[in-house]
Parts: sequence; structure tokens; C-alpha cells
Amino acid sequence: MSENTSRTELSALGEFGLIERLASRIQLQQPSTVKGIGDDAAVIDPQGLHQVVTTDMLLEGVHFDLGYVPLKHLGYKAIVVNLSDVYAMNATPRQVIVALGLSNRFPVEAVDELYEGMLLACRNYGVDLVGGDTCSSRSGLVIGVTAIGAAKSEDIVYRSGAKDNELLVVSGDLGGAYMGLQVLEREKAVFTETGAQPDLAGHDYILERQLKPEARRDIIELLRQLDVRPTAMIDISDGLASEAIHIARSSGLGVRLYDDKLPIDPTTYQTARDFNLDPTTCALNGGEDYELLFTITQADYAKIKGNPSLTVVGHMIDANSGYRLVDKQGGEHELMAQGWDAFLRKDG
Amino acid sequence: MSENTSRTELSALGEFGLIERLASRIQLQQPSTVKGIGDDAAVIDPQGLHQVVTTDMLLEGVHFDLGYVPLKHLGYKAIVVNLSDVYAMNATPRQVIVALGLSNRFPVEAVDELYEGMLLACRNYGVDLVGGDTCSSRSGLVIGVTAIGAAKSEDIVYRSGAKDNELLVVSGDLGGAYMGLQVLEREKAVFTETGAQPDLAGHDYILERQLKPEARRDIIELLRQLDVRPTAMIDISDGLASEAIHIARSSGLGVRLYDDKLPIDPTTYQTARDFNLDPTTCALNGGEDYELLFTITQADYAKIKGNPSLTVVGHMIDANSGYRLVDKQGGEHELMAQGWDAFLRKDG
Repeated sequence: MSENTSRTELSALGEFGLIERLASRIQLQQPSTVKGIGDDAAVIDPQGLHQVVTTDMLLEGVHFDLGYVPLKHLGYKAIVVNLSDVYAMNATPRQVIVALGLSNRFPVEAVDELYEGMLLACRNYGVDLVGGDTCSSRSGLVIGVTAIGAAKSEDIVYRSGAKDNELLVVSGDLGGAYMGLQVLEREKAVFTETGAQPDLAGHDYILERQLKPEARRDIIELLRQLDVRPTAMIDISDGLASEAIHIARSSGLGVRLYDDKLPIDPTTYQTARDFNLDPTTCALNGGEDYELLFTITQADYAKIKGNPSLTVVGHMIDANSGYRLVDKQGGEHELMAQGWDAFLRKDG
Repeated sequence: MSENTSRTELSALGEFGLIERLASRIQLQQPSTVKGIGDDAAVIDPQGLHQVVTTDMLLEGVHFDLGYVPLKHLGYKAIVVNLSDVYAMNATPRQVIVALGLSNRFPVEAVDELYEGMLLACRNYGVDLVGGDTCSSRSGLVIGVTAIGAAKSEDIVYRSGAKDNELLVVSGDLGGAYMGLQVLEREKAVFTETGAQPDLAGHDYILERQLKPEARRDIIELLRQLDVRPTAMIDISDGLASEAIHIARSSGLGVRLYDDKLPIDPTTYQTARDFNLDPTTCALNGGEDYELLFTITQADYAKIKGNPSLTVVGHMIDANSGYRLVDKQGGEHELMAQGWDAFLRKDG
């Protein structure tokens, strides 16, 4: 968090002032952006390409806890999770629009930090922030981001394109963001009870996975270089199990995952053990990894084989065979998707 | 509200179930919609047109009170206020994306009513609901809507296109939505204190203005028929004064409004008097009328003269002359914009 301790009330700026303050920091970089902030709507020139559009809402107390999430990181993450959806269509993100619900509890300086994170993500991914809505909230902070991307019609990859026997491939490693959250929640509880300063040493990797995730633009570029076109693709926001089932269901197929193939970083693995959690469960259901999960033809296997960023975790099977998980002993179980459903019951 | 008293918990359906329930009711009607709900992002074919994109967030306790707003009306209004922004660009809305934050307090039947209103608005305006995000909220209901429209590049009308001496024209009448809100709040207060049933008789028009506003697609069509191309345009969400200043400021001009030209419906006028409010103030600052405010050249005046749907309320002046209001006695005052700024101080 910033060392800046000055506090300017939002009411001192007002909506117009806040919008002008934000707009003055934005440098448009997309040739496709015709008009950014400052009218009833943003205007985009599609330049002959199809447009993809996705939205995500982040609510305080549900998706984030300002007790341990710095606002700049939160702003960064709010943008990135939407860009991840655009990459999962094999499209290039170009614009974002941001709706914010703010309460008086936030001074202008806090809003600045949030936007700083958003604009940093925009710069890093070559995206323009072109509009939004700012309103007062009586409850917590509410962030709604809509991302717009572009692609040639024939390049767009849907969830529904997988075929029987195709390989299921995941980028990066899994479960880290979830374990990062566990560490943050533990240290918050300790702090609340004892006032002890958080002990986050040795957890850099998983904390970054939770607090400052990246969208896998590099994987989209890698696949183009390797001349591999995924047949189906999704990003992992709810957990591998849930997303694998999404691809299978959308494609009218079943899926089989292999426990011993799951890519888990040693830090994630060890932290899970320290928390008496099963690393496999964390990798399957942890969520928020924002890796890409996709299917490729058997013929394309040779092109990705041995690449450290890509792991084959299973393959598609016929619909009647269902959703299956093969454990390390070779036993087969039904693959269960957790995530949002359980979440709603607990937190809703 | 529905007579249906059955209650199904959201947790019984889960996110997948809720999305499937919604998706099964949607009939896509836009040839430009390539892919609706059911993937990481919606896919749109711009068909050679520019795209306009706008978003609005509605928060319970700030923008609406479920004590007197039926969920179906709320859903309808949430869509319409976004379409109004698209029409204000002189574009045609084609798609909407909806993000919802729901708490356990809402049964599935309530969510159904909300969507019923949204889908009714979509049908009425020929728009597809193509995607969204559904999450649990710990505070109230949160609705985020993003609307996407299309227009030829040369047809898009910005706020910034007004020229000195051009006429400022407004559609319909003003202040009604604000007075409708006053009636609803009074009756709610009476009900809370005495248990007396609301007395809404005689207020149909202003209640409809507040609860079920329409976007002025008909005005956009009328202007095309009349061969009038607005030079600048905005929709009235915050109040005439605020929007007139937006056009003036964006165009590098001043503006002069005439009190005795403001179109005020007799019901609005009488209700304002009954509340000891100045009808002019309600028309200038009431907000939520979703009428269109636009400038036209003096040469186009003959084309709109006498049209009952259009009223010339003022004209553009040079920037140094500022923002002015001429009262009924001919005295000139500075035009003040209220609305969101005051609102944030009160409710934030």
C-alpha cells in the first residue's frame, strides 16, 4: 500500500472531477479505439474483425478482502481476469470498460491506487480503458469490468470444438492462487487474534498467483508460433475440474483427467501439505489460476511435447463415459466440479 | 409482482443451473450475434459497422429500493437505461451483457422475474442478451449491464459536435421520473409508519416514467424521417441542466436555457406543486427521464417546428458567456448542475 497518508474525500471531486482525473491519465494506444471516455458510449472500429465481449463482476467480501489485497493489485487483477476470457477465445483484447461502485469510506487516493493498477494492466496488455460508470455504493466496493477483443472469424476458438480422443492440455501450473489465498487468510486471522505481523516469507510465488495473476497472452502467442490451433479452449477461473467438464459438456463428450499429470509447483505442493490439504484437490478445484485449458488433435502432440509451459493432463472420451479422474494408483473416479456452487451456499 | 409464492433456493440450482435456466429462455434475433451465452465471451459480427459500447451499474439502496420497485420493472429499466446511451450516439443497440450479484435472500423465482423484465426489454428493442456473469453478493442486489450498438462511422453523433447559435432540442417532457420517485418514497414512508396501503391513484404517468422508462428509439427514427441530423446528442439521465452543460463543455461552448420553454407534463407540474417543489427545478435536475437532448442547425428548425415530441429549450452560445438560465421574467442566472455530486455526499 502507498505511504501517502493524505485523504481527499470523493465528494470534494464529484463524479465529473473523478472522471476527468481518470481520463487525464489515460493514453489511448489502440488504433481501433475511435472514442474513449467522455461520451454516452465508447466507439470502436472493428477493422474488419469479429468482436468478442466478456464481463466479470468483483464484489468486496465475496471476491476480495481489502484487509489483505492492496488496491493497486486488485485493479490489476480486475482487468486481467477479463483479458484472460478474451485470450481463451483465441482473440486479442483491445478495450476495457470499467463500472465502479464506491463508498465514502474510500478517499480519492484509494481510487487512484485502484486505477493505477487497472491502467498498469492496460499498458502491459496493450489495451485501452475506454469508458465506464462511477456511482456511490452503500455497501462495499463493486468493480465491473467488460473487455472487448478482436479476431478473425475463423481464428475464434469455442469451448464446443473438442473431438473424441483429443488431448487436454493446460498451461503453467495449478492450485497456486488458491494456496496463496489460504496463506493470506491464515495470516489475517493471526493478525486479528494476536496483532502479529503477517509472516509471508517463502510464499512469494503463490501470493503473486493470488494477488497479481497474469493472463496467458504468451501461451496464445506460443501456440501460434508452434502452429498449433486449439480445437476448444477455456480459461481456468473456477478450477481445472469445472473447466474440463465445461469443455466436455459443450463438445458433447466426456473427459478423463490423470492425477499424476497435474502440474503443481513445489511451493504450492508444500504449502498444501502444511495446511493438511490434498495438493490434487487444490489443483483440481482451487480456481483463480487463469491458466488456459485447451484441446488439441493427437497429430499436434509432437509440436507441444516437452514444452515446459504446457502439460497434457488428460483426453476427451465419449459422452457416455462421463467425467473421470484416474488416481495415482490407476483407480478411476467420477470427476466432481466444485467452485461457485458450494461458494454460493456458504457466502450468498 | 407475481402471485407465485413458491420459493426455490438459488443454491438448489447453482450457477450452471441458473445460467442454463436463463439461456433456455433466450431467443437470439440479431444476425450480428455469432455466439451468445455459453462460452468465455460472446462473439459479434460487426457487419462492417462501427461498434459503440456503454455500461451502467445499478446498486440496491442507491439506484433502486426493492420496497417499491417490482423486480420485473427493475430488469426492464436496467436494460433500457443502457440502450438509451446507445441511441444517444445515434446508433442501433444490438447486444447486451448482464452481470448480476445475487444474495441468498433472493429465491430463483425472484431472479426469474428480474430476467423476465430484461428479456422483455430485449424483445421490445430487438436486442440479444449474449452473456454475463452471475455471482453471490453479501450485500444487496447488484446489476451491471453493458450494451453494444452499431452504426456507420459517419452517422455517429458525439457530445462535442455542437456549434455556436445552434438550437438545443429535447424530446418528450421532463421531471416526471423524479416526481414518480417522490410519490413512491412518500407512500413507502406512510406505509412504514401507519401500515396504510399506498395511494398511487392519479399518478400513473409519473410512476411509469420512474418505474418503466423507455429509450427514445422512436425519436432517432423520427429524426431520420425528418432528415434532421443532430450535431451533438446526449441522453438525459442526470437532469437537463447537467446534460446541457455536458454538451456545451464537450463542444467548447456555453449554453442558454429558457425556463418557459421547458416541456413539463401537467401531472408532473401538479405533483411538484403538491410536494411544494418548483416544477422548473424538477425538470432541470430531476434526472432519469431518459429523453434525448440534442443540437440542430438553425436551418433544420423548420423541419422540427411544431412537432409535439420535440421542444427547443435553448441554444448554444460562446464559451465565455457560460451556462445560463433565463427565468420567466427574463432575468438571467447561472445554470447549476446538480445530480450525482450531491447524491454521493448524501448516500455514499
